[in-house]
Amino acid sequence: MAVESSPRRRADAERNATAILDAGLECLLVDPQTSMTAIARAAGVSRVTLYSHFPTREILLEAALERSVAEAVHALDVEAGDAGPADETLARLMRSSWQVLDRNFSTFTAAAAALPPDVIRDRHDRILRPVRDLILRGQQEDAIRRDLSADWLVTVVYQLMHAAAGEVQAGRLTSAAAPDVLTATVLAALRTRGGQQ
Amino acid sequence: MAVESSPRRRADAERNATAILDAGLECLLVDPQTSMTAIARAAGVSRVTLYSHFPTREILLEAALERSVAEAVHALDVEAGDAGPADETLARLMRSSWQVLDRNFSTFTAAAAALPPDVIRDRHDRILRPVRDLILRGQQEDAIRRDLSADWLVTVVYQLMHAAAGEVQAGRLTSAAAPDVLTATVLAALRTRGGQQ
Repeated sequence: MAVESSPRRRADAERNATAILDAGLECLLVDPQTSMTAIARAAGVSRVTLYSHFPTREILLEAALERSVAEAVHALDVEAGDAGPADETLARLMRSSWQVLDRNFSTFTAAAAALPPDVIRDRHDRILRPVRDLILRGQQEDAIRRDLSADWLVTVVYQLMHAAAGEVQAGRLTSAAAPDVLTATVLAALRTRGGQQ
Repeated sequence: MAVESSPRRRADAERNATAILDAGLECLLVDPQTSMTAIARAAGVSRVTLYSHFPTREILLEAALERSVAEAVHALDVEAGDAGPADETLARLMRSSWQVLDRNFSTFTAAAAALPPDVIRDRHDRILRPVRDLILRGQQEDAIRRDLSADWLVTVVYQLMHAAAGEVQAGRLTSAAAPDVLTATVLAALRTRGGQQ
């Protein structure tokens, strides 16, 4: 045990953290009850190495989710910081956040199935904060409709993004076509009527 | 056993079928693993009576789902049969199907969590067929946009309805306000641009 948890072991495990997360996610998507032993085997590490980083499946899943959320928040922050018209910024934001969602869809799916709703809701709120701020700005600038609440419009954006991801997973929409379809739908739903001409 | 499954017993159970479905649903929503014994107790019937109708939790859940689906299909068929402008018919259809969804939300939630995806998808397709037909008609009549596929627009309607139901459950939207919010969002997303004036 002293040997297994030595600094060298831990350094190895850290170097492999991404590989462990990737392998673990893949296992958990196939079977949410995959044993830690099977995950260690899939990642090519010892069980002790695995446990030193991720004591439980839930912690592994939360770490994978955290990695994807950080990527999404970064992408959204970059786009939302744009000072241009809110509806145009929203269109760009939809496209870049679609790329993040498309790359991380399996993580979000596995996390949503296994983690407690309050954990999902917290990450979800963090991701959507820049979208909400942008919608509020758009409403002030009269680029985004004001007859519906910003909270509802954020929900609309979120649900339509997840709907598009679901359609891609089901093979009814291509990943290449999704950003255009999404943007056309979301802008029509959110823009003020004048803005739709 | 011969006595328990006698015709009189079965007649009693049939008379109580609705009560059994209601009680069973309530239990399964709180705990999807509720035992059949607990469901029988909650419904005020013997386990034999319960088993004679619903041999498994899944069959009970499917029966409850079927009851809700039949109600939804009936409501949608009535509205969709209207020969008026497709966008106006769609607005009415959103309102009446919202009432059905609102009344049966717990059934759909319990069913989605417990039944196999192909069962859910089949019921879902049956419910959405009139919506799809109406959208196709609207596209021909130029009341509904044609730059997006009918299949995607059906998904948009479905997702936004479920989003609204989720917001009501979470206490962020009132059930009274939901039909207006939904209709305003769906029509903006689906109507041709000229139709939005």
